[in-house]
Amino acid sequence: MGLARIIAPPDLVIGVNTGDDECFYGLHVSPDLDTVMYTLAGMANPETGWGLAGDTFDTLEMLRKYGVDAWFNLGDRDMATHLRRSQLLRGGATLSSVTAELSRALGVEHTIAPMSDDSVKTVVTTAEGDLAMQEYFVKRLAEPPVESIRYVGAESAQPSAAMAGALAAGGMLVLCPSNPFLSLGPILAVPGIRRGLEAFSGKRVAVSPIVGGAALRGPAAKMMAELGHEATCVGVARQYQGICDFFFIDDQDAESAPAIRDLGIQPVIASIIMESEADKVSLARQILELADR
Amino acid sequence: MGLARIIAPPDLVIGVNTGDDECFYGLHVSPDLDTVMYTLAGMANPETGWGLAGDTFDTLEMLRKYGVDAWFNLGDRDMATHLRRSQLLRGGATLSSVTAELSRALGVEHTIAPMSDDSVKTVVTTAEGDLAMQEYFVKRLAEPPVESIRYVGAESAQPSAAMAGALAAGGMLVLCPSNPFLSLGPILAVPGIRRGLEAFSGKRVAVSPIVGGAALRGPAAKMMAELGHEATCVGVARQYQGICDFFFIDDQDAESAPAIRDLGIQPVIASIIMESEADKVSLARQILELADR
Repeated sequence: MGLARIIAPPDLVIGVNTGDDECFYGLHVSPDLDTVMYTLAGMANPETGWGLAGDTFDTLEMLRKYGVDAWFNLGDRDMATHLRRSQLLRGGATLSSVTAELSRALGVEHTIAPMSDDSVKTVVTTAEGDLAMQEYFVKRLAEPPVESIRYVGAESAQPSAAMAGALAAGGMLVLCPSNPFLSLGPILAVPGIRRGLEAFSGKRVAVSPIVGGAALRGPAAKMMAELGHEATCVGVARQYQGICDFFFIDDQDAESAPAIRDLGIQPVIASIIMESEADKVSLARQILELADR
Repeated sequence: MGLARIIAPPDLVIGVNTGDDECFYGLHVSPDLDTVMYTLAGMANPETGWGLAGDTFDTLEMLRKYGVDAWFNLGDRDMATHLRRSQLLRGGATLSSVTAELSRALGVEHTIAPMSDDSVKTVVTTAEGDLAMQEYFVKRLAEPPVESIRYVGAESAQPSAAMAGALAAGGMLVLCPSNPFLSLGPILAVPGIRRGLEAFSGKRVAVSPIVGGAALRGPAAKMMAELGHEATCVGVARQYQGICDFFFIDDQDAESAPAIRDLGIQPVIASIIMESEADKVSLARQILELADR
């Protein structure tokens, strides 16, 4: 959101994880694409982090009456997004073109690019067995200890045209602060994207999702520990070795700067906890300032 | 509804037209099956004649935001019915088994049988060209003059198992008062059903949907006139020649009795305008009394 506020639509491509995409109630749901789209459209529900502000849940309640185990919440207006997407996909459209059409209809002018138009499924292997990403995250509240994560289909997936174009165009690349395994992992698992990041001609910047040893949101820290990684900003930076030039860490993690420098990544110490829209814009500006550095 | 109130669930099979079934917003919608199901579940919207009482329309409103020409109204709770049906059909279930599952979930104990599990599409040829049934009826408000009607797929459609079973079982058969071309026409166009009606071992009773030259509901009279039929109860009776033994006409049409008798059908003069549930039960009782006649 911060970057979109200060970068003109033609100059920003937002590459989005689709490893969470899943079929619910017969519809193709793309949780991350929708969260980005609703956020940029100013329609997102700020309390939940998913769905539309003020949405109702009548369809879901009725599905439960039909005996459906409707554990994945989809609001009534949100449902229209999945209905429309599913119908267009079934008609042969790509996820990229569907996303463009839906975004345009909601007045979003920046390009929201699915990482790939091919199916990639994030599968979390836990003590309870293999769980699809939403099953792990929403149904099981990220509670079962994680043993490993894989991205089914990633090996043969192609980057979407917008994603490939952005990678080839150069400029600046930003890995936003998000779960390195669940949100960025699937994107980086697409070979064409990883190669594009490795060969990227401009500056590559990442922002730590971990501050002071705790994730700002979600189970990133818990999961990193379970997977045997250091649950710190340094642990995250290590994931991005070879694809990252600058790594933003929070003021309170200033002492980690040398360890990050040792990874061949330049640490940038800043205030990276974003509460308000002003915080988001401020961080985005600091990132863009690196272009001249 | 009247028959269901006085006949035990195992003794009544309600055969329903599926010629109106259509795909809306990517979902399989069965308007007539749903109206019967919602009516027997006590959930129907009495004001509209379709949909669920008290339903809201948030999904549809959002679909319109996405540029969808959403002229076919589906409520948010109603949407769950179509979502569930579509998902089960896509999984390989028959329309009969889906209907049974949905009905059971809503507490409907009588058997609601689609006329067929095969696709039959009622197509109305008008001065404006061919229109699918809902397009003609809902979008164009049954305004364009009708030139002809055909039931695409009917010739090769098989009666559903419940429908065939009911026809073979004998007892009594009732053609409920409905549009002879749009509602009963598609059912009668399925060869196995027509043969079953012709060979039916019990009494076959029909109730006129036309009283005093006007349809009690909908465009039946207008349509009959456009198709060159007499828009009276006699005109309807003529459609059922060979598959009907008793024909209920309203008191005010008593003078048409001889003309109906001339068709080889026995007229029954009664009060057939049903306003209240008591009216429906009363007419149902009069129909069942014919069993002993």
